[in-house]
Amino acid sequence: MRKVVVAGERQVAFVDVPVPEPRGAWVLVKVEASALCTEYKAYLTGRQLLNPGHEGAGEVVAMAQPGRVKIGDRVVVLPQLACGRCALCLAGDYIYCENELDYGMTFGTHDGSGTLGQYVLKPDWLLPLIPDDVSFEHATMAIDGIGASFGAFEAIDVGALDAVLVTGLGPVGLGAVANARFRNARVIGVEPMPWRRERAAEMGAEAVFAPDEPDLLDKIRVAAGGGVTCAVECSGRLPSQRLCIDAVGRRGRVAFVGEAADDLVIRVSPDLLRKGASLVGSWLYNIGDYPKVMQVIQQSPLIDLLVSHVLPMSQIQAGFELLASGQSAKVVVNPWE
Amino acid sequence: MRKVVVAGERQVAFVDVPVPEPRGAWVLVKVEASALCTEYKAYLTGRQLLNPGHEGAGEVVAMAQPGRVKIGDRVVVLPQLACGRCALCLAGDYIYCENELDYGMTFGTHDGSGTLGQYVLKPDWLLPLIPDDVSFEHATMAIDGIGASFGAFEAIDVGALDAVLVTGLGPVGLGAVANARFRNARVIGVEPMPWRRERAAEMGAEAVFAPDEPDLLDKIRVAAGGGVTCAVECSGRLPSQRLCIDAVGRRGRVAFVGEAADDLVIRVSPDLLRKGASLVGSWLYNIGDYPKVMQVIQQSPLIDLLVSHVLPMSQIQAGFELLASGQSAKVVVNPWE
Amino acid sequence: MRKVVVAGERQVAFVDVPVPEPRGAWVLVKVEASALCTEYKAYLTGRQLLNPGHEGAGEVVAMAQPGRVKIGDRVVVLPQLACGRCALCLAGDYIYCENELDYGMTFGTHDGSGTLGQYVLKPDWLLPLIPDDVSFEHATMAIDGIGASFGAFEAIDVGALDAVLVTGLGPVGLGAVANARFRNARVIGVEPMPWRRERAAEMGAEAVFAPDEPDLLDKIRVAAGGGVTCAVECSGRLPSQRLCIDAVGRRGRVAFVGEAADDLVIRVSPDLLRKGASLVGSWLYNIGDYPKVMQVIQQSPLIDLLVSHVLPMSQIQAGFELLASGQSAKVVVNPWE
Amino acid sequence: MRKVVVAGERQVAFVDVPVPEPRGAWVLVKVEASALCTEYKAYLTGRQLLNPGHEGAGEVVAMAQPGRVKIGDRVVVLPQLACGRCALCLAGDYIYCENELDYGMTFGTHDGSGTLGQYVLKPDWLLPLIPDDVSFEHATMAIDGIGASFGAFEAIDVGALDAVLVTGLGPVGLGAVANARFRNARVIGVEPMPWRRERAAEMGAEAVFAPDEPDLLDKIRVAAGGGVTCAVECSGRLPSQRLCIDAVGRRGRVAFVGEAADDLVIRVSPDLLRKGASLVGSWLYNIGDYPKVMQVIQQSPLIDLLVSHVLPMSQIQAGFELLASGQSAKVVVNPWE
Repeated sequence: MRKVVVAGERQVAFVDVPVPEPRGAWVLVKVEASALCTEYKAYLTGRQLLNPGHEGAGEVVAMAQPGRVKIGDRVVVLPQLACGRCALCLAGDYIYCENELDYGMTFGTHDGSGTLGQYVLKPDWLLPLIPDDVSFEHATMAIDGIGASFGAFEAIDVGALDAVLVTGLGPVGLGAVANARFRNARVIGVEPMPWRRERAAEMGAEAVFAPDEPDLLDKIRVAAGGGVTCAVECSGRLPSQRLCIDAVGRRGRVAFVGEAADDLVIRVSPDLLRKGASLVGSWLYNIGDYPKVMQVIQQSPLIDLLVSHVLPMSQIQAGFELLASGQSAKVVVNPWE
Repeated sequence: MRKVVVAGERQVAFVDVPVPEPRGAWVLVKVEASALCTEYKAYLTGRQLLNPGHEGAGEVVAMAQPGRVKIGDRVVVLPQLACGRCALCLAGDYIYCENELDYGMTFGTHDGSGTLGQYVLKPDWLLPLIPDDVSFEHATMAIDGIGASFGAFEAIDVGALDAVLVTGLGPVGLGAVANARFRNARVIGVEPMPWRRERAAEMGAEAVFAPDEPDLLDKIRVAAGGGVTCAVECSGRLPSQRLCIDAVGRRGRVAFVGEAADDLVIRVSPDLLRKGASLVGSWLYNIGDYPKVMQVIQQSPLIDLLVSHVLPMSQIQAGFELLASGQSAKVVVNPWE
Repeated sequence: MRKVVVAGERQVAFVDVPVPEPRGAWVLVKVEASALCTEYKAYLTGRQLLNPGHEGAGEVVAMAQPGRVKIGDRVVVLPQLACGRCALCLAGDYIYCENELDYGMTFGTHDGSGTLGQYVLKPDWLLPLIPDDVSFEHATMAIDGIGASFGAFEAIDVGALDAVLVTGLGPVGLGAVANARFRNARVIGVEPMPWRRERAAEMGAEAVFAPDEPDLLDKIRVAAGGGVTCAVECSGRLPSQRLCIDAVGRRGRVAFVGEAADDLVIRVSPDLLRKGASLVGSWLYNIGDYPKVMQVIQQSPLIDLLVSHVLPMSQIQAGFELLASGQSAKVVVNPWE
Repeated sequence: MRKVVVAGERQVAFVDVPVPEPRGAWVLVKVEASALCTEYKAYLTGRQLLNPGHEGAGEVVAMAQPGRVKIGDRVVVLPQLACGRCALCLAGDYIYCENELDYGMTFGTHDGSGTLGQYVLKPDWLLPLIPDDVSFEHATMAIDGIGASFGAFEAIDVGALDAVLVTGLGPVGLGAVANARFRNARVIGVEPMPWRRERAAEMGAEAVFAPDEPDLLDKIRVAAGGGVTCAVECSGRLPSQRLCIDAVGRRGRVAFVGEAADDLVIRVSPDLLRKGASLVGSWLYNIGDYPKVMQVIQQSPLIDLLVSHVLPMSQIQAGFELLASGQSAKVVVNPWE
């Protein structure tokens, strides 16, 4: 099978490795579509990635034993390798599992662990079914495209009565716009790249601003018809994190979806206590919400705007460049082309 | 009427001023008990307070017009001067009202605005009734004694299945211990002052540690039988804020009750996103929860341990010293003695 | 002032009575618009109603004392006469207050107690403000038009992921359709009158059936794309109540908005326990939700379809006939014409 | 292996059958303790039960393939045979699964399907782990003893501020008393059998009444200090169902745990709508709550009162008689004695 390797700065290689073999509850999935995510950052900096990819959809083609899926099932490949037995896993919060399985220890290789390749191995219970009327390309949106912000929207309970600020309108942030519109919430976006601001507007954002817009807080307030009730931070950048906290009013809720390890300074009384505000971290979503995520993908008219590019995997370099340029929403590749 | 003035460093004065007159919906309450709160900090530093006090209970003695209370009603005097008309007030979140009334503009004086005096004026709807079987001293616990942490417990939904860390076991933190025990949650305390640690233990805390205890996080984890599920920060100190964030596990919830303006550094991914954790600011409680707060005061066997001292107001200086010494829980004064 | 009296079978009279005088917290409101509700049933049967009407909007014109409103305020006149002091009132659940004030005892007359007249008296706190950009006619939708089903939608937490069955597409049921569409929930309607079925379809219902449609349950299931997740019963009729219970699947939620005193037979195991289903009664909404109800009225594009007729009060008989005929949605009258 | 058969009226037989063989994800569990439930009703009426029992705990002794458990694991045997793949199963609501597996079709026999035998087969994911410090006898309480009412308490969100009526103090109702006390809710019981009333009182019920107690509603109200806020119906009897609905006040919540197919008459307006009340059916609990159910079993001091009898399976007839007599709480048998 062929897989992608990020080999160096702006260098992608394609490597042929043996197709991994299913074992125990690990099932072999033929990847039909895989969405690009943060791998492009490694591509830009030259950090090697030998088995990239965590957003796949495909077909079950082999298994070692009977289990939760069968040959021919069309499935989403959920990320991470949760244990399936701890309290968090029982509660569907597998993404927070603290006893992750060790792929390398199990298979003696990491081949087949990333979705940017033609086959992937995954425990069967992390392979929920794709409805017949959903394409593989659309189905990959169940991970970070629609899924990541869906979890955040559930965590802070966003509905039609809300006006939500979304900071960072990359693939995840544009997914947040789609989720907001699906819930008929008003949505205000903030994003530096013009292409993405335009796409957000096309998807129904009430207003979209550049982060250096003068009087930004005031303009957000006006655009939201009196202030946003909540915010979803998708950029991972400190000024946007701060903007979210400042923009929400009393009883405001902020969800963080964009990964960030930088030091964010908050002050308890003005930022939280006196506002009755809350800050919530959200990583993907509870597995029990998968059918709802898929429902958004089925019913939202915005998914074709969210999947801005579908490329052959052989042109993945062009996909990384697109992400780096800010001229795309979600980029999906087909590993077989 | 006689009122307290914090006149300078460790100086209290008693001043006689005219009894204020009710006007419109503002009702005159004869204060029968008033609980001390942060005023002792001004007392220690010498910052003048001309009308201190925001935790009173008393009897309605005069009104300008018919309204929500009547002469003779025993009432709690809720803090702040919410407008009663905005969306937040309609929702019971009066404490977060952004259109506070102006006492000075209304009455041409601030006499009668603080509960550390013999009379106080308050809009009638902020004067909920005290049940017959609750003393005025106990009723004052409806503000910061039991009330402040009650709101936090509701905000992060603490129940019998939780193990909660309470940092800062001053009057508010000891109230948090009482609330936790009322809900049959396990409670672990952290507090520097030995008297307060002992009182928390007496009130049923599973374990109580000094903040400089070696291997504190591990000891908290063990004492909680595998980690705390949530934390209520009552000290307002940065190391305790950090301790709360670090102590809660995956899906942990932290509520901040202790006022603090200092810079708290958080990092979104490790502190929030990868844990699925949330940080919530809580200032008092929704007015709709007042009957529940009063129910805790009526039914909890710990209220007499929470009200550690009842003093004549003439000895308020001793009360401030008690608070400063860390040798007390909640201190209540009687303005008529 | 002029008020409406339902004098006998299909007989309406207009009676001139003295304008009532404000007293205490009771404020005089000049009624500018009033929506018709169940009064038409009395009109049809000849049951006398001396002070009909509970859905008004108007302007504050006189008060006995300062309070929560001021002269000139544009306000909605909320129904019932809650005490404002009990635990239910404190929690905003005034509609369920068990200590209602007695209008007749207070004023020695019932004139001014119904909104189908030119003036009405109401305690000030039951008169929330109307935003400037909302007409009096639209504002009356804050009671039963949009409000009644809004409370039900909150009670069973209806959102964009839901498919909701609405039985009975009279004025309240059509309001439920508007609420469902505002939340971007799919909505299936059931209603005997063709005019109302058509109006519901025009408002965006996915499908609308007559109650005698063959294979109705199956058709509802198909139209909802696999079954409805919840139902809102607005007809008050037994077969519709049963239909709602039968139509919702596992974990289904049914809210009852239509008043009914008839014997409804349920069987605990098949109807509730084995389905994990719930039945919820909902009467109007929590007063804290008033701003949200008003937000729906401001932002929904369907309100002009919901208010199908605006008539002079002098033609109220035509309004009752419209309601009786099933050829209308909500009918609003202007008491001054 | 030896299994129990209910052979006729008050007749139990012990039958030796082959030990069933694990296949696919079906795992063989050696049953160490099994709790009796409604089987005694068949025993009394003579309805044959060839493979009774659904409340077991034991040890994993054989499996056909690697999966979620391993040999030697101590596990609870959850009831039913959910598919593990549908939306309900994904959400942890496996108990409501509509695509149950067919034991007979899978194994060509029903031997090994009931827990009143020495071995049982079960899909691995329905075998959650028992903590080391919990005995097999106590662990069986995770099904109907503590589990059934735990789900109801979650469904209607019972906490320390509640006063809960429990009707029917058989094994399930006494478990409800244990759950209520664990949550520090006040609990009032209603039960015809004196032994059970006494046991409930011993477990901390505030008051316990016979169903024919004169002025029962009033006495419940007084005992609850002003009315119960919620009710959990565990008897399956119509008068108790009605009592629950009548006893809860405004905003009351009633959960039904006792199975019943009889016609219960409700009237929407007085029973639900005008009270803002809700009726909820609850069948066991979400699998995500299993760790919490186990936490109650570990921490509650009342479990030894709940498990009133532990018998050798050879004396199961005595166990059925105990249940029939109303002189027991939960009866557990050991299949190996």
